[in-house]
Amino acid sequence: MRYELYYWPTIQGRGEYVRLALEEADADYIDVARRSGGEARMMAMMTGRRLDTPPFAPPFLKAGNLVIAQVANILLYLGARHGLAPKAEAGRLWVHQLQLTLADFVVEIHDTHHPLGPTLYYEDQRPQARTRTGEFWKSRVPKFLGYFEDRIARHGPYLTGRRVTYADLSLFQIVEGLRYAFPHRMKRFERRTPRVLDLHARVAARPRIAAYVASERRIPFNTDGIFRHYPALDK
Amino acid sequence: MRYELYYWPTIQGRGEYVRLALEEADADYIDVARRSGGEARMMAMMTGRRLDTPPFAPPFLKAGNLVIAQVANILLYLGARHGLAPKAEAGRLWVHQLQLTLADFVVEIHDTHHPLGPTLYYEDQRPQARTRTGEFWKSRVPKFLGYFEDRIARHGPYLTGRRVTYADLSLFQIVEGLRYAFPHRMKRFERRTPRVLDLHARVAARPRIAAYVASERRIPFNTDGIFRHYPALDK
Repeated sequence: MRYELYYWPTIQGRGEYVRLALEEADADYIDVARRSGGEARMMAMMTGRRLDTPPFAPPFLKAGNLVIAQVANILLYLGARHGLAPKAEAGRLWVHQLQLTLADFVVEIHDTHHPLGPTLYYEDQRPQARTRTGEFWKSRVPKFLGYFEDRIARHGPYLTGRRVTYADLSLFQIVEGLRYAFPHRMKRFERRTPRVLDLHARVAARPRIAAYVASERRIPFNTDGIFRHYPALDK
Repeated sequence: MRYELYYWPTIQGRGEYVRLALEEADADYIDVARRSGGEARMMAMMTGRRLDTPPFAPPFLKAGNLVIAQVANILLYLGARHGLAPKAEAGRLWVHQLQLTLADFVVEIHDTHHPLGPTLYYEDQRPQARTRTGEFWKSRVPKFLGYFEDRIARHGPYLTGRRVTYADLSLFQIVEGLRYAFPHRMKRFERRTPRVLDLHARVAARPRIAAYVASERRIPFNTDGIFRHYPALDK
């Protein structure tokens, strides 16, 4: 089966967590909106005329007759099919729980540059973004990355042991993104979570991930995505 | 099996989505942190000494040997066991997708009074809260509630048809909360989503939900939870 991924064509954004899973799984997929006419097709699917169960927002994945939205939901589906999560219920729920916690972290990362909401531009909320970013690095990054560090300390080298899961791929992406968006702050912080960095390096060295990141399929980070490098926020 | 729910004892908060599902399912459960010594027990479980897979934050549910955190993950588990979601994969993923979209909405509801983040008090971010709340009601409420209105229009009277799911219970709670937190704004808005209101009334009239809401098990809304009534934000 050839999967169809639908996501905004110019950013990594939330679609990237799905792309990384598809790449690690060596799945056959097309990134629809990056092809000619693809973005219009994506928008048409969301209006709900064609689909019985239209998504609220991208990313979504077409898998045969299924159209699945919400990153964690897509990964729940892909994880079961491609060995990127345990098959038994307890392990499956645990990896999903980790993914949902990573998703909460991603929301807070996004809010550093958009504290007044997604409807206003960053340029309209610079002072608030500085305040929120300061709080984020003081309290939230240590709490979230510290939590994942503890999980690896207990069960490493990946989050759940010796086998990589989709949650590890997402944590890799978060480290990548924090390093891009906040190079100074992250450099100062990251010595506190050596196991998270080791996990990042292990994922980066996986042959399919390494090939993907080096390819043109990987869209470069930019200031339209979730992770944005604004020097004013990186002090 | 007697479930153990762990959540902050003085607020509805995110625990309420789980409580509503347990009540509708007529499940045997105890709300641990509301009992003597329960909050200390909850905190001990999060430190990770007792548990192999400690939660990042409440709510979490102990179900036999499983300890499951993240609201949507708990509901995924409960839905399958108590007839609160379809059994077939497509329907199961669709209800989970709706729940994750509702969860995104809940985050934005919380951010109306905490735009600068969860680490500062509301009193330290009043002007920013006013701005964010204005944007929220102008753009985000119509987008989210409009999306759910469209789903009911297609497949009503519940979100997925004639059978109630855990996502319907969560949408009920969101309407309850918006009416409490923003009585004036919600009164003006809600004529635009009559089907959402009808769904709310149907859930409210379900015997177990009605009995629960009238009981002492239901904690009243207050200004410590997700839905907070601050007159300055309700114009």
